Amino acid sequence: MPDSRIYTAALVVIGDEILSGRTHDKNIAQIASWLQVQGIRLKEVRVVSDDMAAIGEAVNALRVRHDYLFTTGGIGPTHDDITVDAIAAALGVPVIVHPEARAILDGYYAGRGGLTEARLRMARVPEGSDLIPNRYTGAPGIRYQNIFIMAGVPQITSGMLDALSGTLEGGAVLLSETVGCWVQESEVAELLRQIEKDHESCQIGSYPFWREGKTGANFVIRSVDPEDLATCSRALSEALGAIERPAIPGGI
Amino acid sequence: MPDSRIYTAALVVIGDEILSGRTHDKNIAQIASWLQVQGIRLKEVRVVSDDMAAIGEAVNALRVRHDYLFTTGGIGPTHDDITVDAIAAALGVPVIVHPEARAILDGYYAGRGGLTEARLRMARVPEGSDLIPNRYTGAPGIRYQNIFIMAGVPQITSGMLDALSGTLEGGAVLLSETVGCWVQESEVAELLRQIEKDHESCQIGSYPFWREGKTGANFVIRSVDPEDLATCSRALSEALGAIERPAIPGGI
Repeated sequence: MPDSRIYTAALVVIGDEILSGRTHDKNIAQIASWLQVQGIRLKEVRVVSDDMAAIGEAVNALRVRHDYLFTTGGIGPTHDDITVDAIAAALGVPVIVHPEARAILDGYYAGRGGLTEARLRMARVPEGSDLIPNRYTGAPGIRYQNIFIMAGVPQITSGMLDALSGTLEGGAVLLSETVGCWVQESEVAELLRQIEKDHESCQIGSYPFWREGKTGANFVIRSVDPEDLATCSRALSEALGAIERPAIPGGI
Repeated sequence: MPDSRIYTAALVVIGDEILSGRTHDKNIAQIASWLQVQGIRLKEVRVVSDDMAAIGEAVNALRVRHDYLFTTGGIGPTHDDITVDAIAAALGVPVIVHPEARAILDGYYAGRGGLTEARLRMARVPEGSDLIPNRYTGAPGIRYQNIFIMAGVPQITSGMLDALSGTLEGGAVLLSETVGCWVQESEVAELLRQIEKDHESCQIGSYPFWREGKTGANFVIRSVDPEDLATCSRALSEALGAIERPAIPGGI
């Protein structure tokens, strides 16, 4: 039997490059999808600038509210990488050089010019941390209690998520089914409300779009109960069929 | 002379579809880039779920900290569109049907089945609001004091931003120049730190990437002063050239 407790997580995306619009964040969707599979719900994301106080405030606000807190960005070797210092300061713990991280970086940079002072920055962690393996570039991620400090480069983040897969305690996975329809959502608003009300364990989200002059919407039904999900999805499809707006299973 | 005050903004992205990983947010980058041109800096983003309390908390925290607060999502006709109610509740003002919004929707739906109860939801605003034109689908955005309540569908958001262009007071535009280089950022960390220190009005961000087995980085220099920006960018390019890592103007 799956655990009936709901496990939640928050994410702090750290980086001026996201807030300037220069870089399109890919980590929110990537971490959200990964958490889903682990039976953990992403409840809140904050994007903050490369600023000690801003990072510290977000981390302290969110780490106590959720089972898990993830951060991305700001753990490289350059002067603008201040995530470790900001989080350690927020937690009130010193920053130390992690011996295992140092050894990993030593090995990684052996044929690449050696472990310089800048590169050694990537071995610094809040005291009491464990490491998260990074199979791409040596510099590890960091786990401190329920805080997971990850890279900002999406490919590296992805490798760190792989390394964490299955290691976090989660609850029942929130399942979803999508039903698409060439309809204006305003035509079916009452129908959606009624069907959601009739299926207590389900939520229905309505996501309209406009493509090549045509109006459509995808309706996403979510539930932790596979039977309720199937019943609700069927009821919605039938209701759409009954008003001559055929449901498109799987969405448009 | 440009205003020397720094104008800041925050953004609240509202929607379970972003937090589930199903939809990749496009509004953060779009609004960030648009704000940049208006001379306003996006300082913080929060992504929250379709939940009255979560929306209200984020809005109340951010509207007092920044010159402007934007929200995206949750202003459609369906049961999961609760942004207006949540913001009005957070502000302690009643929700009313805006007469002009009603007239716009009346016109828009005249040949499309008429203004049903669900569609009339899109004319509801916190009392005291003005409208933001929506050239795509009728349903307007909403301005209440320094809060701008916008659509979640990126194309519609974009039209609303166009309508607001040039109407918000901003300060000096933060300019940027990008210099790319096929280098590991850890090789040049000290060089970057020194050049940033030597050019007081400039910040340098370092954004590494790995493509097809090659390591590179883009260095983004930001300043409100065009001369300082040019000087700093030149200094960086020369320093990279001096260690035989040619700078690539405009980035890689």
